[in-house]
Amino acid sequence: MNLEVLREATRQQMPEKRWKHTLGVVGSAIKLAKRYGGDPVKAELAALLHDYSKAWAIDRMEIIIREQNLPQDLLIYDKELWHSHVGAWAVQSEHGITDEEVLDAIRYHTSGRENMTKLDKIVCLADYIEPGRDFPGVSKIRELAKHSMEEALITAFGSTIEVLIERGKRIFPLTVLTRNDLIMQLKQQQSNKDIENGG
Amino acid sequence: MNLEVLREATRQQMPEKRWKHTLGVVGSAIKLAKRYGGDPVKAELAALLHDYSKAWAIDRMEIIIREQNLPQDLLIYDKELWHSHVGAWAVQSEHGITDEEVLDAIRYHTSGRENMTKLDKIVCLADYIEPGRDFPGVSKIRELAKHSMEEALITAFGSTIEVLIERGKRIFPLTVLTRNDLIMQLKQQQSNKDIENGG
Repeated sequence: MNLEVLREATRQQMPEKRWKHTLGVVGSAIKLAKRYGGDPVKAELAALLHDYSKAWAIDRMEIIIREQNLPQDLLIYDKELWHSHVGAWAVQSEHGITDEEVLDAIRYHTSGRENMTKLDKIVCLADYIEPGRDFPGVSKIRELAKHSMEEALITAFGSTIEVLIERGKRIFPLTVLTRNDLIMQLKQQQSNKDIENGG
Repeated sequence: MNLEVLREATRQQMPEKRWKHTLGVVGSAIKLAKRYGGDPVKAELAALLHDYSKAWAIDRMEIIIREQNLPQDLLIYDKELWHSHVGAWAVQSEHGITDEEVLDAIRYHTSGRENMTKLDKIVCLADYIEPGRDFPGVSKIRELAKHSMEEALITAFGSTIEVLIERGKRIFPLTVLTRNDLIMQLKQQQSNKDIENGG
């Protein structure tokens, strides 16, 4: 695996705007990895590849989900969720990426999942806060990301769910389970801190 | 089963304010049943009993959930959800209510469930819109309830989920599945109408 070849191959999958976003996510993911003791090399690789299939045709993604036996419940939910699983499959089959930690971070960067790894959190959060992002609430998420990935992600998933409610759209259940799980993780961290402080 | 005896027994489970709310839900449920072709007798009974255990002590409800083998996942979620299942158990064991349709409408009046029956919808929606209710968005839900229980409930559950997000609290997954299911039901109704209209 040659990173320069991968960069060029990834760039060719998407329009210029999406590529700029990708570079933003790479930068933010490396920063988050350094801030929170993650692996910057894996963070860079997963961030680079996270939207590999984002610009692919819907029909192409649907065929891959069906034929490669990716989670079939994706098909009954928003198409926005498809590219993550399709992308993980694509970089494995087209570029021989086999690191499951990296593949999972790509797979779950949109929905999240319960028990997210540190790398999952880094890529998912970087995708929300990279410098090119501009949506209501993004500055609050950027602020929270300075001291807690969990708090930042709880707020980020909350804002995604609120947008779906405003638009009358269905909510992907895994995103709710992810947010619930992060709230429990945060509580656990706070209660551990209280014990450390003798509280 | 004597309705007067049941009314008196229910009244004794709760403070005056909750009893006033109960009477409001009874009135709204009967109206909704008539409007949407439901059974007004069952609607009255389920509405009367829907908050039977709402004012019970948390410890008492917890013991019942554990010992009567009610859904154990309730215990890890908000205590607000407990009284519905405990109430259904209580009116069955204390007053011999055995009509499963009525018991289900009590059980699921807070969370909802997938494939809600008409009676489930009536009691759940009446609980949101009874005249004593006053929360942001209630007037919109009342308006929607005049022509579609599904649209009204989608908005009602949406507002409940938004409140939980604002408060940083976990969302009960079944409520999300319920809202998703109601959105699909609404789509189905609209596509049936399009077919009827030759569209």
